[in-house]
Amino acid sequence: MPNPEPHRLGAVEMAARIESGALTAEAVVQSCLERIRAREPVVRAWTHIAGDEALAAARAASRGSLMKGIPFGIKDIFDTADMPTGYGSPIYTGCRPSFTASAATLPRAAGGVLLGKTVTTEFANRHPGPTANPHNPRFSPGGSSSGSAAAVADFMVPLAIGTQTGGSVIRPAAYCGVVGFKPSFNMFAPAGMHPNTETLDTIGIMARSVADIALFRAAMMAIPYDKPEMPERAPRLALCRTPHWDKAEPEGKAVLEDAAKRLAAAGAEVVEGELPNACGNVSEIQNRHSFFEAPRNHAPERERHEALLSPALRHGRIAGGLKLTLDEFRAAWREADRMRAATSDWAGGFDAILTLPAPGQAPRTLASTGDAIFNGLWTLLHMPCLTLPAGQGPDGLPVGIQLVGKRHGDQRLLDIALWVESRLGARA
Amino acid sequence: MPNPEPHRLGAVEMAARIESGALTAEAVVQSCLERIRAREPVVRAWTHIAGDEALAAARAASRGSLMKGIPFGIKDIFDTADMPTGYGSPIYTGCRPSFTASAATLPRAAGGVLLGKTVTTEFANRHPGPTANPHNPRFSPGGSSSGSAAAVADFMVPLAIGTQTGGSVIRPAAYCGVVGFKPSFNMFAPAGMHPNTETLDTIGIMARSVADIALFRAAMMAIPYDKPEMPERAPRLALCRTPHWDKAEPEGKAVLEDAAKRLAAAGAEVVEGELPNACGNVSEIQNRHSFFEAPRNHAPERERHEALLSPALRHGRIAGGLKLTLDEFRAAWREADRMRAATSDWAGGFDAILTLPAPGQAPRTLASTGDAIFNGLWTLLHMPCLTLPAGQGPDGLPVGIQLVGKRHGDQRLLDIALWVESRLGARA
Repeated sequence: MPNPEPHRLGAVEMAARIESGALTAEAVVQSCLERIRAREPVVRAWTHIAGDEALAAARAASRGSLMKGIPFGIKDIFDTADMPTGYGSPIYTGCRPSFTASAATLPRAAGGVLLGKTVTTEFANRHPGPTANPHNPRFSPGGSSSGSAAAVADFMVPLAIGTQTGGSVIRPAAYCGVVGFKPSFNMFAPAGMHPNTETLDTIGIMARSVADIALFRAAMMAIPYDKPEMPERAPRLALCRTPHWDKAEPEGKAVLEDAAKRLAAAGAEVVEGELPNACGNVSEIQNRHSFFEAPRNHAPERERHEALLSPALRHGRIAGGLKLTLDEFRAAWREADRMRAATSDWAGGFDAILTLPAPGQAPRTLASTGDAIFNGLWTLLHMPCLTLPAGQGPDGLPVGIQLVGKRHGDQRLLDIALWVESRLGARA
Repeated sequence: MPNPEPHRLGAVEMAARIESGALTAEAVVQSCLERIRAREPVVRAWTHIAGDEALAAARAASRGSLMKGIPFGIKDIFDTADMPTGYGSPIYTGCRPSFTASAATLPRAAGGVLLGKTVTTEFANRHPGPTANPHNPRFSPGGSSSGSAAAVADFMVPLAIGTQTGGSVIRPAAYCGVVGFKPSFNMFAPAGMHPNTETLDTIGIMARSVADIALFRAAMMAIPYDKPEMPERAPRLALCRTPHWDKAEPEGKAVLEDAAKRLAAAGAEVVEGELPNACGNVSEIQNRHSFFEAPRNHAPERERHEALLSPALRHGRIAGGLKLTLDEFRAAWREADRMRAATSDWAGGFDAILTLPAPGQAPRTLASTGDAIFNGLWTLLHMPCLTLPAGQGPDGLPVGIQLVGKRHGDQRLLDIALWVESRLGARA
């Protein structure tokens, strides 16, 4: 591709071309806006597109900055003072918060251009928005960060921000065939993020390559940018089927096992590695956190606008959650502490854990964002997770793998992911 | 006091009188508003008083509810859609968020009446607001929950809500001579709280008795209300001077040691109990969390309104914090994990830890809210803390003690505090 359309480039490549003068940030933003104009009627990834403001910001962006005017999108679960903020609920349609979230401000401070707000499910729970999977619009993009995953997959924007309480970054990224990264708990600043379950809510990012994730991570954290480095020797990987292997679809199992074989053939040491026994009911413990905390964080909506909540949220997590006792929640918290300690030792024995990001390809419906059963456990364990596209399902939709690192081993996970990405080949 | 003015009553007593028909919620709110009218020019505890709305809410409150129309105040670090929200900063004067925080919504849902917003220091950091100590207006009320502590101490309201990242609930409560309670980390839902340091920020409450704290806690958590129970036998208490004993003022040391003697004389087993060796630099580790997280959470203000930040915040925590590296922060996080594990075992050996809530009486200035050196460690350890008034300083200002419980032993801590409160006698 000597002269691809600018919106097809990855963020690192955009930055290089802007720096060299081969491309301007304005041309990149313009190209992304054209792509959105062409594809948004089908994909429906956005709740708001800040076209003119983004073009002006691109013109003003410094070529000396880290992001050099590269555009990004942010899930509409984050406050923006200069764009409408609705949290995926009719309760807040058109609201304008007093300030713009840190997750939008920090990349802007690094020279990024916020292109707009992407569709979230209702309060980052399960009730879906209108977004379709760009690979086939009859299929779900996953959720709750539906719009961010679809926009990145469809080349509308090279980078986008989501949040994960169960599987809301990794699963939509896998369903849409992009790279999704959920860092260790609390690595990206939460100011201006609408909370759901405070002990689990984790801000994450999406891109079309590991290298782009690393660039965006540095901007999101206001830390120096270190390119990920290819490990000197092939990694030791734990193939982890998790306690939920029977919930996996055939294509999920096949792609994971095929990836394990290809990586082993490329030199990786792949060993079977199941979670420590202490983690037997890890998904139940994850659920209990959401059942206790979410109804209390959603009290503002429950008390004042109950009729505008989806029945699924009202009768499910809220009404169901309020039945959980404090003692049950405290017991879950203690269990979670034990699981985190046990898993930290276990994970230290590998360079990364190789596992499923989702049961299989995306569901053939827009009424469900799919099952988070292969995500919630890692979110509870506060471990960094990254999904990469690795194959296809029976309907030609992307199927991914997931790499999980030791807690706070985020940088190392990116290095390992770079190796895995290179050995699995280009994006599916 | 057969017929005290209603605003002088505690919350439990108000509830009993409203239930029996001896008093109406409207009369309570009216009495609190009169008290505020008389004293606010000196104390300056409020940023907004919702007089007419509160009276209307009191008339509408159900006598069958838990709180029966009892009024409460909330620190202006929480979002309220129906009252101005300023976070203690000129940047946001008069802002109206889209929703009202869970911490205000849950007590309202339990029948409480939100009387208004109380003064916070700038973003719950150190730059003080105008509030004075009601015992002597030349002295600080402490901070950052300055207005909540002063309003409760001055009988303007029986209950108020604050937040603590270092010592922002316990210290002002001690300086103002009220009961302050900081629960275990993450027990009160954070939706609508402006974050500062997400791994430490803890919502807390203030009242004038332990019994009132227990009532308000149930409302704040949407859990069944169980009155605290006097323990059957006198407790085993660890007298903990902490690594910072040399920072204590003479009156702080004297009141703590006197309280220990009085409690021992009343039957408590008081043993010397210093923190495990693993906690040697606990306050440094607490500081590092704030230095990494706070500048990132304050990015929205730093990037758009830097000139409106106080020099102390701009040059101190923000500029200083941005020098801390990610590796230093990660090391601090690992240390904190180790300290929490070590302290949990240690704390299990006692019914509660008896320690200082502050160096001594409040500082004789409104330019500083005092030193959080005796608070930050317990906040980092995520342990529940409660301060009780226990004596006086050289200028007649209140001096408190602090009780600390094992993490998640909040209910038990209230039981122990009830015993300690009864043995130390009435409010100083």
